[in-house]
Amino acid sequence: MHELGGDSSTVDVVVVGAGLAGLCAARELGRAGATVQVLEARDRVGGRVLSRQLAAGPVVELGAQWIGPGQEHMAALVQELALTPFPQHCAGDKVLSLGGKRSTYKRDIPSLPLLGLLDLDRTIKKLEAMARTVPLGAPGQAPRAREWDAMTVETWKRKSVLTAGARALVDVAIQSIFSAEPAEVSLLHCLWVLQAGGGLMKLSTIQGGAQQTRLREGFQTVAERLAAELGGQLQLSAAVRAVVQSEDGVTVHHSRGAVRGQRVILAIPPTLAGRIEYEPALPVARDQLTQRMPMGSVCKCVAVYERPFWRERGLSGEAVCDRGPVRITFDDSPAAGEGEHGALVAFVLADGLRELRELDVAGRRKAVISALVQLFGPQAGEPLDFIEQDWGAERWSRGCYFGLMPPGTLSRYGAALRTPCGRIHFAGTETAERWLGYMDGAVESGRRAATEVLPLLALGAKR
Amino acid sequence: MHELGGDSSTVDVVVVGAGLAGLCAARELGRAGATVQVLEARDRVGGRVLSRQLAAGPVVELGAQWIGPGQEHMAALVQELALTPFPQHCAGDKVLSLGGKRSTYKRDIPSLPLLGLLDLDRTIKKLEAMARTVPLGAPGQAPRAREWDAMTVETWKRKSVLTAGARALVDVAIQSIFSAEPAEVSLLHCLWVLQAGGGLMKLSTIQGGAQQTRLREGFQTVAERLAAELGGQLQLSAAVRAVVQSEDGVTVHHSRGAVRGQRVILAIPPTLAGRIEYEPALPVARDQLTQRMPMGSVCKCVAVYERPFWRERGLSGEAVCDRGPVRITFDDSPAAGEGEHGALVAFVLADGLRELRELDVAGRRKAVISALVQLFGPQAGEPLDFIEQDWGAERWSRGCYFGLMPPGTLSRYGAALRTPCGRIHFAGTETAERWLGYMDGAVESGRRAATEVLPLLALGAKR
Repeated sequence: MHELGGDSSTVDVVVVGAGLAGLCAARELGRAGATVQVLEARDRVGGRVLSRQLAAGPVVELGAQWIGPGQEHMAALVQELALTPFPQHCAGDKVLSLGGKRSTYKRDIPSLPLLGLLDLDRTIKKLEAMARTVPLGAPGQAPRAREWDAMTVETWKRKSVLTAGARALVDVAIQSIFSAEPAEVSLLHCLWVLQAGGGLMKLSTIQGGAQQTRLREGFQTVAERLAAELGGQLQLSAAVRAVVQSEDGVTVHHSRGAVRGQRVILAIPPTLAGRIEYEPALPVARDQLTQRMPMGSVCKCVAVYERPFWRERGLSGEAVCDRGPVRITFDDSPAAGEGEHGALVAFVLADGLRELRELDVAGRRKAVISALVQLFGPQAGEPLDFIEQDWGAERWSRGCYFGLMPPGTLSRYGAALRTPCGRIHFAGTETAERWLGYMDGAVESGRRAATEVLPLLALGAKR
Repeated sequence: MHELGGDSSTVDVVVVGAGLAGLCAARELGRAGATVQVLEARDRVGGRVLSRQLAAGPVVELGAQWIGPGQEHMAALVQELALTPFPQHCAGDKVLSLGGKRSTYKRDIPSLPLLGLLDLDRTIKKLEAMARTVPLGAPGQAPRAREWDAMTVETWKRKSVLTAGARALVDVAIQSIFSAEPAEVSLLHCLWVLQAGGGLMKLSTIQGGAQQTRLREGFQTVAERLAAELGGQLQLSAAVRAVVQSEDGVTVHHSRGAVRGQRVILAIPPTLAGRIEYEPALPVARDQLTQRMPMGSVCKCVAVYERPFWRERGLSGEAVCDRGPVRITFDDSPAAGEGEHGALVAFVLADGLRELRELDVAGRRKAVISALVQLFGPQAGEPLDFIEQDWGAERWSRGCYFGLMPPGTLSRYGAALRTPCGRIHFAGTETAERWLGYMDGAVESGRRAATEVLPLLALGAKR
């Protein structure tokens, strides 16, 4: 059915996807002496990491934006590549808009009436305690895995969270961490992701949390540096269509030719892997998994201003909002010394994004800016620049941040996430044990896949 | 990116998929004077309808098997094609195996202790009353759509069904109708499917229900007769890879060439449609839908015996079982006058199938036959023939009976099921208003798609 085209070559390992997972897998393999070919469908590297240098000055992150404590893989990589981390701005009060009422607060937990605050505190403690019973390497083995995988987070919330304020904030937290509504996600999958990142509070906060540190150069630079090391071992604009396994190797057919290898690492989200043709067909469990891991729904909007005017009014730029298109914002201004501009990044998520998509580009801009005005005042109304990045429209991601599991998936098909299928191995942040869904998980997964493949190679045999 | 190959042609409408939906669409279009090309990935027609003539004599249905009252499309088609319906055998007692205890019963509802029986009766009435509030053409508009789409059927069951016996039977009913566990399916999607088929009781029963009537020739004959009418307008073994829309038409690229048309009808399940490349990309809502409609899990096993020995013991061949690999069975013997053989069809479903897949072919056969022995006695232990058909392993179905919706899907993406995307129209049983998931729904959807396309064609313009 598939024949090798003219542009074919042979390597030890073919890596599909030049996001952080694929690039790190290729790097580890190369360092161990294996020959590698990385195939990337896009005309750029980085996958869900995408930085853009604005004409107005700052580098903005249209994809993954932060690293935080505990993300050892990314921290080491940033240090090794001599890049420049800087702290996410957080000095000042935070804005809370709940039920149309705007207030400000200072601590990690938004200001609620006492009862709501107690309820929220209890809810977080309860979720984190449940999450701690989920074994990261085998979430399906959690003592209550079947029960938790049979319900949505929404079901749990309605039963366990009692006050309207706490419910609204749980919604925003889930939307922000999963780019999905609580109704879309299995409770077990939710707990697994929370535990993989050290708990709900860690995933929700700046200082000491997953939003602590940005990168002056932009995180795509990490991918670009890794790609530069690969040189000709990386091919862009090569969309993989078919993976054909035979007794003595595997052939990967793509839009520009074909590559043969001993092994292949698919470093792409499961739903994209499900679009590839496989010969022979993959096991049913793997195919079913790829049918049931939809990508989340997030659009990042960045508004650039002459200066960070909110800081002058004692605001940090962080906001939490339960209505309208914008759920959370952060100060997105450049690092100190990189210019006087100010910027805000606004996350449009899940149902909020699905509604926003009904509008045209001007309508979307207007809706988001008007939400920023509500949170930060009229000065937010006239940005110098405004960028939106809806990841659902990205053909080679099909959504962001990561592949979600609806009920019934993790306990039944979770093992297929990274169980190799013959000569095919799986990487990508969805397959990570720690920091699943984050850049750090992607790096971990790429390294793990390389470690998995290396002992299976007959190195030098083909050279 | 895609260029027209040597084997290209031009028609009014390209139909992808030669299941009942695609074949009926093509037929309607042809009758109205449009030129059509049907492309089918398999080397046969019928899709999820597959009949096999056994060496031992009877024709068995490895796919869709029955029609029933209210299925007007299929009834008319069978009559028009002069095929021979016959009643599903149901005389005799039914077997119930619950918690390892075997009993027999005579009515539609299995025999339970009084409390369980009352509970089951109340549950069925409640489910059917809820289902009646779901508008078939717009299930997302049901008054409680958001709430019901935020929970699994399992969540509802745990809250609303009180006795162990009734819960076990609800499980078997859901598994049998959806080929999925209650934990995998959104309550709203469940209610929609129930309502589309006239309610839970209708979908669960033989006389007056969806299992009432079989076809002497096998239902694949319906597809074959429709295909014969098409002649050269049908191409088999043509797997569609890409659909490219331009201002003046659409080009469908497949494994054996390309076809140009004014319109294309995709008459395949959403998860398979999600594997096709589209240029330009489809709207996000459509792409997201195809990421979140996994196919169900069913393996049909047919055991053929010298004669239907269970009838001699006053049993109908129908059984319901809450443990082991087999959930339901029916008498699958040939129509009167078609030979003396007896046959039983056993449905292995959802979790039961996922467990069975761990075994090799001999182990699977042993497990299923041993379940039949438990239900029907030692004579079931020595079949003349035994066939298993696991639809999950069918590359061009990826599971059966139909595409399921986990929570959060129907209320948010349901409209994308049959909203045309430019020149692309959608058919298939998943898009039906009535008898969704059944053959009748497939026929309805194909006719609806043809009706949708016809007024948009410039007929004769290209000829």
